Amino acid sequence: MSREKSSAVQSIEWREDHVRIIDQTYLPGRTIYADIYDVGQMWDAIRKLKVRGAPAIGIAAAYAFYLGIRDMEEQSYAGFRIEAERIGQYLASSRPTAVNLQWAVDRILNTIHALKDKPLAEIKQRILNLAVTIHEEDKRICKCIGELGQELIPKGAKILTHCNTGSLATGMYGTALSVIYHAHEAGKKIHVWVDETRPLLQGARLTAWELQRAEIPMKLVIDSASGHLMKTGQVDLVIVGTDRVAANGDTANKIGTYNLAVLCKHHGIPFYIAAPLSSIDISLPHGDDIPIEERDSAEITHIGGTQLAPAKTDTFNPAFDVSPNELITAFITEKGIVKPPYTENLAALFSRD
Amino acid sequence: MSREKSSAVQSIEWREDHVRIIDQTYLPGRTIYADIYDVGQMWDAIRKLKVRGAPAIGIAAAYAFYLGIRDMEEQSYAGFRIEAERIGQYLASSRPTAVNLQWAVDRILNTIHALKDKPLAEIKQRILNLAVTIHEEDKRICKCIGELGQELIPKGAKILTHCNTGSLATGMYGTALSVIYHAHEAGKKIHVWVDETRPLLQGARLTAWELQRAEIPMKLVIDSASGHLMKTGQVDLVIVGTDRVAANGDTANKIGTYNLAVLCKHHGIPFYIAAPLSSIDISLPHGDDIPIEERDSAEITHIGGTQLAPAKTDTFNPAFDVSPNELITAFITEKGIVKPPYTENLAALFSRD
Repeated sequence: MSREKSSAVQSIEWREDHVRIIDQTYLPGRTIYADIYDVGQMWDAIRKLKVRGAPAIGIAAAYAFYLGIRDMEEQSYAGFRIEAERIGQYLASSRPTAVNLQWAVDRILNTIHALKDKPLAEIKQRILNLAVTIHEEDKRICKCIGELGQELIPKGAKILTHCNTGSLATGMYGTALSVIYHAHEAGKKIHVWVDETRPLLQGARLTAWELQRAEIPMKLVIDSASGHLMKTGQVDLVIVGTDRVAANGDTANKIGTYNLAVLCKHHGIPFYIAAPLSSIDISLPHGDDIPIEERDSAEITHIGGTQLAPAKTDTFNPAFDVSPNELITAFITEKGIVKPPYTENLAALFSRD
Repeated sequence: MSREKSSAVQSIEWREDHVRIIDQTYLPGRTIYADIYDVGQMWDAIRKLKVRGAPAIGIAAAYAFYLGIRDMEEQSYAGFRIEAERIGQYLASSRPTAVNLQWAVDRILNTIHALKDKPLAEIKQRILNLAVTIHEEDKRICKCIGELGQELIPKGAKILTHCNTGSLATGMYGTALSVIYHAHEAGKKIHVWVDETRPLLQGARLTAWELQRAEIPMKLVIDSASGHLMKTGQVDLVIVGTDRVAANGDTANKIGTYNLAVLCKHHGIPFYIAAPLSSIDISLPHGDDIPIEERDSAEITHIGGTQLAPAKTDTFNPAFDVSPNELITAFITEKGIVKPPYTENLAALFSRD
C-alpha cells in the first residue's frame, strides 16, 4: 500500500491538545479542517456528519471523551466517574445507530472503572493513550480487511460499492474501500462503480474523491442504475461496509444496501460485507431489533441552495436498511473471511483468541 | 374526476398560432410557460426536457410538425413532402428512445402521403387538426387507463411509483398517475410513495407537485428506500409508466424501474405497467433491441449550482432500463388489463378492432 501511504487521507488527527478533522460536509468542493477542543463540538460534528463512517465515529468519540474529561475540576473519583458516565451517554446520543460509538464509549468507561485506584491525572492521560490506541488499532484492522478481502477479488473485476467506507470513514484505508485499494495495489486492474448514495451523496462526494485521488478507474452512477448494470453483465461483485451486524449476520448499512443485496441474489452476483469486529453486535440476535434512524426531510428536499420538491412535501427518510443474512455471500473481517452459517461462524470470531 | 377537471395541469396547449407549454425544468419552484412558434424551439424543448413524458412528447411533436410546415414556401407537393420528411426526421432525433415521438411523426407523414392530391393549404390545416386530435385522443386514453386501472387498486393501498407519469407527462391525467388519481377519486383512501427519481428528480419535482395539488396523501422517498419499504410491509403494489414496450412485454422505462421490478418479484408484490397502445412497439420482438439513451454527466454531478462530485468525475448515465416481461404482473392499457402470456395478449390489442 505504498501509494496509499502518500495519498491516503488523514481524516482524524490528534494535535497535542485538540482533534483536527476534515469537515466532510464541504467535500468534494473544498478541503476544510475543523479544530475541535471540546466534547460539545464533537457531538455536533458527529451529528452533522462532519465526521462520519462507523469506525471514524468511534475514533472521534474516543478523542472527544478525553476532551470532555480533560478539564474536569472534580477531585473525587466518585464524582469524576459520574461525570464521565454522563459524557459517555451524551456522546452516544449523537448517532444512536452507530455501534462503534457505543463501543468506544464503553471501552473508555471500562478503563475508567478499572483505574479507580489511580490518581485522576493519570486516568485522564490513560484515556488519551487509549483514544490514540483505538485510532492505531483501526488503521491496522482496516489494513487486515483490505489484505484478506482482496483475495476474493478476481483480476479485472468490475466492483460496485455504496456509500463511503474509505480513509474518510476510518482511521485509514477504510473497510470495503480498503479491499478495493488493496486489490488495485495488487495489480488486479479493477473497475469500480460508485453509487452516488442519496440523500447525502457520500459516494459522489467522498468515495469518488478518494478513488480519483488514488487513480483507481471508476465511474459514478445513480443508485437506481445498479439493476441495469447487473443485468447487462457489468458487475462482478458488490462490496459494502456496515454500521451494525447482528449475531445471525443480518446487516444494517446505508439505505439502499438492501436493494443491492436483493439485486445480487436475483443476478447470482456475490454480495460481500466488509465488517470490522467492532461493528458486529453479538448481543443482538437478529436484524429486526436494529433501530433505524430517521433523518431530516431537508436531506431529501434540498441540495445546496436548490429546492428539489414543492414546499411542505412530506418525506420518509430512513438512514439505514437491514439486509438479511441469507443474501450475504461472506463477511470480510480483520480475523478472516466468514461464510455461512453465520450465527456459529460470527460467534467463533469472538472466542478464537 | 370532477376535482381533476379543475386542478389538472394543462401542460400543453394550442393557442391559435403557437403552442404554450409549462417549462417543466423550472418546477416545482416556479410555474413558467414557454411559447413555442417554430419547430427548432420545440426540438430544443423536447431535448432539454422542458416537455417530457412519452405521450406529451408525441403531442408536442405533432404540434411542432405543424409549426414546421405552416410557413413552408414550397409550392409543389413533391417538394413539400421531401421537406416534411426532413422535419419528421429532425423531430424524431430529439429523443431517440421515445416511441410516441416517432409514432406521431409517422402518423402525420402517413396523412401527408394520403392527402397528396389536396392543395397544400388544406394539407397544412388537416395536419393542425390531426395534432389537436392526437392531443384529445391522449386525454381520452389516459382517462380510460385510469378508470380501468383503478379496479386493480385495493382500498387503503400503499402504492409506490417512479418518475412522473401524470398530467404533466400527457394530454391530461397521465398513465400510472391516472390510475392513482382515479383510485383516489373512487374514495379508496390510498397512500402514495413517490420515488424522487434521480438524476432529474421528476418524482420530487413533478409527481410530488401534482399529488400535493390534488390533495392525495403521499410521501417522497429516495429511490433506494424502495427495498426497505417493501421489506417492512409498507408497499402493496408498484405502478409505473413506460417509454416503450416490446412485443413480448419487455418494458423500457426510466432508469430504476428494473430495480423495482426485481424487488417486487422478491417480495411478491404486484408490479404494474400503465401503457397506452402508442407505447407498445409490436415490431420489436424483445427488450434487448431497445436502444438505451445515455445522457450528460452533469445530470449526475451537478444540481442547481451545487457540485456533487469532484471535478472531472467519470459517470455512466443511462436514461432507461428494461424490465423483462416475467417480472410484470399486468399491463394497464386503454383497451383493458393485459396479463401473460404477453406476446399473444399484447398482439391481440392491435387486432381487436
